[in-house]
Amino acid sequence: MRKLGKEGGRGMTTRNKKIRAGIPQGVISRLPIYYRSLSELMRRDVGRVSSSQLGSALDLTAAQIRSDLSYFGSFGQHGYGYRVEELLQHISHILGLDANYTMVLIGAGNLGRAIASYGNFRNRGFSLHAIFDNNPHLEGNFLADCIIQPISKLEEFLEVNPTDIAILTTPRAASQEICDRLVSCGIKGIWNFSPLHLQVPDNVVVEHIHLTDSLLKLSFKLQEQSQQKADSEK
Amino acid sequence: MRKLGKEGGRGMTTRNKKIRAGIPQGVISRLPIYYRSLSELMRRDVGRVSSSQLGSALDLTAAQIRSDLSYFGSFGQHGYGYRVEELLQHISHILGLDANYTMVLIGAGNLGRAIASYGNFRNRGFSLHAIFDNNPHLEGNFLADCIIQPISKLEEFLEVNPTDIAILTTPRAASQEICDRLVSCGIKGIWNFSPLHLQVPDNVVVEHIHLTDSLLKLSFKLQEQSQQKADSEK
Repeated sequence: MRKLGKEGGRGMTTRNKKIRAGIPQGVISRLPIYYRSLSELMRRDVGRVSSSQLGSALDLTAAQIRSDLSYFGSFGQHGYGYRVEELLQHISHILGLDANYTMVLIGAGNLGRAIASYGNFRNRGFSLHAIFDNNPHLEGNFLADCIIQPISKLEEFLEVNPTDIAILTTPRAASQEICDRLVSCGIKGIWNFSPLHLQVPDNVVVEHIHLTDSLLKLSFKLQEQSQQKADSEK
Repeated sequence: MRKLGKEGGRGMTTRNKKIRAGIPQGVISRLPIYYRSLSELMRRDVGRVSSSQLGSALDLTAAQIRSDLSYFGSFGQHGYGYRVEELLQHISHILGLDANYTMVLIGAGNLGRAIASYGNFRNRGFSLHAIFDNNPHLEGNFLADCIIQPISKLEEFLEVNPTDIAILTTPRAASQEICDRLVSCGIKGIWNFSPLHLQVPDNVVVEHIHLTDSLLKLSFKLQEQSQQKADSEK
């Protein structure tokens, strides 16, 4: 991870460090939502936003938003709300977005192709610089400006090209082995789309996207909804 | 949503109904994880599992697992752990997986194609029966055994074919309009992959997968990790 020198940023880091130990998972999960919502307000040239305005767009209460943000210092002015640009900058910094990250993608199947072509992360400092797959028919093909390389070249590539994040879209059976190889090569972050709970050492972080889990949550909510409807009709 | 008649299931529904109102979001989020982990144990022919064994595979404490499961009744026997098959059946029922769901996919781009080809949900009672896109070049093509239809046919199709879930992979600018049309046609659940917080009436449930949010969480964790490393080296 290569930090970009930013004066404002450095001051915040010191402040965050003291506060962060106790940040609940729920608050961490909401940070990207604030980031997304504030980016949208910036796009619409909104200069200020109150916690209740921000809350109503996100199905959160104003009190919850104030409480979440209080973990990271003091923002906003009573009765005047938050300056959108300033708050977005702070949240970007908290999220580590003033660093640049290099990424490799493992698995150039349907899902891998979709992620590689998904442009949304590129303008946020995440750049994909290599793609690997074990299918010899894909070798040498271009995808998202990268040549697809055989997985046997993984170690060689990572030795020469230090990489922060690996995106894993491999099938379940291959995922742990590939994960172990990535960790041996010094990868510190894994964005895991494979349906396997990966075992990694303490110094490696994993962020899972389990498509099926998400669909099961939808199923749960649908059942709750239909149950409530049935109850109210009694 | 079409319920499959199951004797065991009916009893549980009554019990769940009383308990469910107070189930924390965190518990709901962990249910699919339990489901996935127990399915894996079933595949490996494991008959019984203790809460500490289950916990260590999932980075959760035994106490947390016992506490989560206690929301849904009394399982397991002190010192003997849980019967894997029985617990999996209960969790399937809690998740609403003894129902069958029909789905339509909106957007046959890279992400839509990846989701349509993702077989993991099919054997859990979710079946895709139509795909819509506004690109005339895709019209008539086959994807995951469905013909891609023009989005102008959406209302007509949904009127004749009652559908539970719509999978939304449309671009940001189109998502709310398509969502409104789906809701007008009686769709009750939306699996949303588009980068927009959708506005829906109270009787419609939405489950978001925000790829960028997930990547931002990874970035946050990487920054935390590198901060901790820097601290420990001081």
